[in-house]
Amino acid sequence: MHSTMQNVPLSAARLLRHSTSTHGDSLVATWRGDHFERTTYGQVGRRAAQLARALRDELGVHTGTRPEADQSVVGTLMWNNSRHLESFLGVPSMGAVLHTLNVRITTQQLAYIINHAGDEVVVVDGDLTGQLGAALPHLSGKLRHIIVAGAADPEALAHFTGFVHDYEDLLAQHPADYPWAEDLDERTAAAMCYTSGTTGEPKGVVYSHRALYLQSLHLVSPDGWNMSARDTVLPIVPMFHVNGWGLPHSAAHVGAALLLPDRHLQPRPLAQMIEQGRPTFAAGVPTVWTALHQELGTGRYDTSSLQRVATGGSACPPALMRSYHDRYGIDFVHSWGMTETLGLASAAIAPSGLPAEQQWSYRSTQGRFPAYVQYRLTAPDGETVPHDGVSTGELELRGPSITGAYHGGTAGQPARPTDSFSPDGWLRTGDVARISRDGFLTLTDRAKDVIKSGGEFISSVDLENRLTEHPAVFEAAVIAVPDPHWGERPLAALTYCEGACAQLRELSDFLAQHLSAWQVPEQWAVLPAIPKTPVGKIDKKLLRQQYADGALPVARLERRSRAERGPSR
Amino acid sequence: MHSTMQNVPLSAARLLRHSTSTHGDSLVATWRGDHFERTTYGQVGRRAAQLARALRDELGVHTGTRPEADQSVVGTLMWNNSRHLESFLGVPSMGAVLHTLNVRITTQQLAYIINHAGDEVVVVDGDLTGQLGAALPHLSGKLRHIIVAGAADPEALAHFTGFVHDYEDLLAQHPADYPWAEDLDERTAAAMCYTSGTTGEPKGVVYSHRALYLQSLHLVSPDGWNMSARDTVLPIVPMFHVNGWGLPHSAAHVGAALLLPDRHLQPRPLAQMIEQGRPTFAAGVPTVWTALHQELGTGRYDTSSLQRVATGGSACPPALMRSYHDRYGIDFVHSWGMTETLGLASAAIAPSGLPAEQQWSYRSTQGRFPAYVQYRLTAPDGETVPHDGVSTGELELRGPSITGAYHGGTAGQPARPTDSFSPDGWLRTGDVARISRDGFLTLTDRAKDVIKSGGEFISSVDLENRLTEHPAVFEAAVIAVPDPHWGERPLAALTYCEGACAQLRELSDFLAQHLSAWQVPEQWAVLPAIPKTPVGKIDKKLLRQQYADGALPVARLERRSRAERGPSR
Repeated sequence: MHSTMQNVPLSAARLLRHSTSTHGDSLVATWRGDHFERTTYGQVGRRAAQLARALRDELGVHTGTRPEADQSVVGTLMWNNSRHLESFLGVPSMGAVLHTLNVRITTQQLAYIINHAGDEVVVVDGDLTGQLGAALPHLSGKLRHIIVAGAADPEALAHFTGFVHDYEDLLAQHPADYPWAEDLDERTAAAMCYTSGTTGEPKGVVYSHRALYLQSLHLVSPDGWNMSARDTVLPIVPMFHVNGWGLPHSAAHVGAALLLPDRHLQPRPLAQMIEQGRPTFAAGVPTVWTALHQELGTGRYDTSSLQRVATGGSACPPALMRSYHDRYGIDFVHSWGMTETLGLASAAIAPSGLPAEQQWSYRSTQGRFPAYVQYRLTAPDGETVPHDGVSTGELELRGPSITGAYHGGTAGQPARPTDSFSPDGWLRTGDVARISRDGFLTLTDRAKDVIKSGGEFISSVDLENRLTEHPAVFEAAVIAVPDPHWGERPLAALTYCEGACAQLRELSDFLAQHLSAWQVPEQWAVLPAIPKTPVGKIDKKLLRQQYADGALPVARLERRSRAERGPSR
Repeated sequence: MHSTMQNVPLSAARLLRHSTSTHGDSLVATWRGDHFERTTYGQVGRRAAQLARALRDELGVHTGTRPEADQSVVGTLMWNNSRHLESFLGVPSMGAVLHTLNVRITTQQLAYIINHAGDEVVVVDGDLTGQLGAALPHLSGKLRHIIVAGAADPEALAHFTGFVHDYEDLLAQHPADYPWAEDLDERTAAAMCYTSGTTGEPKGVVYSHRALYLQSLHLVSPDGWNMSARDTVLPIVPMFHVNGWGLPHSAAHVGAALLLPDRHLQPRPLAQMIEQGRPTFAAGVPTVWTALHQELGTGRYDTSSLQRVATGGSACPPALMRSYHDRYGIDFVHSWGMTETLGLASAAIAPSGLPAEQQWSYRSTQGRFPAYVQYRLTAPDGETVPHDGVSTGELELRGPSITGAYHGGTAGQPARPTDSFSPDGWLRTGDVARISRDGFLTLTDRAKDVIKSGGEFISSVDLENRLTEHPAVFEAAVIAVPDPHWGERPLAALTYCEGACAQLRELSDFLAQHLSAWQVPEQWAVLPAIPKTPVGKIDKKLLRQQYADGALPVARLERRSRAERGPSR
């Protein structure tokens, strides 16, 4: 039966129009080193229209309202500021595609993703022109225009063969209205982000208008990040990081005031922003909150406005979340998502009516998914694993905000590599997890690090956490090594604390106190140091290579029998 | 450009699956006169599956996953109880169409809408079989099955020529799983409601899966009714009233516990439910809250759990909302919507940081719309009226949860009468309103009651409110009467307070103190009583008829000149 509902799409332009009219007087402020430069959504909307006019009428940007259309890609290499917001809201709303470029990747990666996405225009903050300039020699030539916001490094773009424009000069020549593409096919591309690609090339995810809108509806809900017109939002997470975790669109959507830190992501300016801007809600990765915690410890700042913080990107230490709660009355929402899920996928909010201690056992998980994200756990043999809070499997997701492919495969088709997507089209997240009966997710490992032993998963993270609880162990890294009978078995590499030592059998017994016998490694390697990547993460790839090359000093214990227990049981 | 997002629809079945798995242990309770009968979403889901099996496999209900499909319509004539919830969630999720029948309409209207919608099955609460039975002789014969939940009036259905089933017997014969239609075209019909039709025949609105889902996402947001897994929700509004205002789907969506009052909508049982069930949120029409307020005044009830109340359906007296706030700490969310908007369209939540008095000036309005509902005000001449908080026009709406037609026009096409829809497809709400610059809606009149004078609107409600502020006036009713020059002019009918009297010129001066000269009526009728409808509303239709028949005792004053002011200015 036909419904009688109006056929009206969900579009970025609807969010833009709503924020710039109904919430046109709401604040958008950018930190300028010691104060906020204040504007409004209304003004951002008028300037976004000028930008869109310039892009379309002067720079020849193609717009489209259907997935089949030939839309231009407009890149941004910018900090969190109101000009970036103008592109953020304006480019998708005109029917072009916004491509937020990560300022923290290598020159090679930057060139790769500009080429791969086919950016025709890049808007760049003046102080980032050096980074863009370094990538220019590696570009394939599709990039025709660079728009510089603010003072540029005069040398950086000297050899660019296209056109360089000054942001303000460009806008000044165009009228402040634009026929935004409100009524488009909502499956049309709106924005794209690339994964940071620690292994292999970065991969592009293309967000539809539909996905942006749905995500923004969920994000503001009380089981998400609980945002309303009465909030003042401080996105510390960069706007180039997974679409700014959806915060710019969500804030605009509900008319929340927006505080943008520009490039000032250090603890002291952030503390000053909180005191001066009085945000009610902020979002950033755990390392930001660790650093800020020290700065706040000086007792010099008034943080009383800040009620809620969302954190994600990596697991946040529970002790840190508790300390913010106990000392400053700030509630953390531990969240999980990835480029492939358009940011926020699950959020850890405890059920009501629980004692504080029990609440923390929920709040330290990766949380629950909204109804429109389907989740399942898959064992190495492809079987679905029960949601019993114990069994682990690779997390697979399905939903309208979840990617089903990567941009730019062969013959104009998106790429669907089998290690990233199940045969029935679900996203394979590469994370191993358990899920409780009531839907709380706990990540236990990255799939590439987990040990697949006899059809069961063994979590390398669990083994490492247990091992480092032993007083003699300083650092531990567990990797999977091939095994003719079990497929894989764990190998524990470790370093001792200075002056300490232990028998490997004693460590094996120690693990067996808490783990099943079959989870305890037989192979051990005591090292002078655990190898690390340049950013300080344990380099398991190198450890696996060293094992394969016979370069690890491996000691082998007898395999523990099923009945065998550690001495203390 | 093609997005890489997965192509996954929004469906009622997704809400059902989520609520019965992730939130499977959450409470669903039905009031049984002195206690709650408790079950869970998980159990409701299993019984909904049994019902769906019975409907499809035994009763031959047709399901469909596309708008073109021939889906069966399943009616429900039921109170707010867990069995109704089984139909509510199950029928749309199987791909049939749920048609909630209003228990408070006349037999003729009931028969009309069962025939017009084409109900093939009706599920009826036992104590409502009498009402259904009375309508049977007027039915066209498409209704083949009646399923009776609970003990029926044995006589009521005796002459039904189809099959009568006992609800529990029917369910007991079918397995508790069903392949819910999660992956359907989201524009497919999910549910339908008829307007109560105070003028003319009731009109059917058919809700799509997409609309139900979007509405449920908005409804839980902090700028809507702010619902989460941590809430316990008491929907006092009947589930047959505009899809239960979306509450059953929203509660299921987020896993909020649900308290269902069954047929016990009187103040005393409601107060008992609040004390025993400890809801955090409730929703109902203003008359419910007026009556409950008296009962709570006895001081015998613990209402401390209740934090928020949504009210709508008609304007709620601000004094009542304040009293709940001041005496019980309960915050009212004054809301507005209609059958044609799938319930909640706007909600009045004050901006932050305002003094209490100023907050009330926002909270007494009809509130703000979400981003996906576009709004405009249209003057009688078709021109768009500015949102300046002063100018009035007929409220017109556009969006994916707004109806663009009525069910069952000619030749299989939906009906789009021009008095209900603008030429460009917007819903004409029939309400006259003003909207502030920041999007707050204030209804001033029904369009059929407003006076269209010289291209401007004069609000009958404004004139009536002013008139009754005069100490001599007991009651006032202002109607539009034809005028050769101005199109229409207001006529004020009134009654005096007992023993009181006033010169009409004095009343005219009194109005002119606050209104423009052109808004003040020339024609007056002093009556012994203002005519009323059977439900106690002022019968303006009859007044207009009496005027046309020359049956009103009309006195005429000179028209006031533009410069003329009342004596006190």
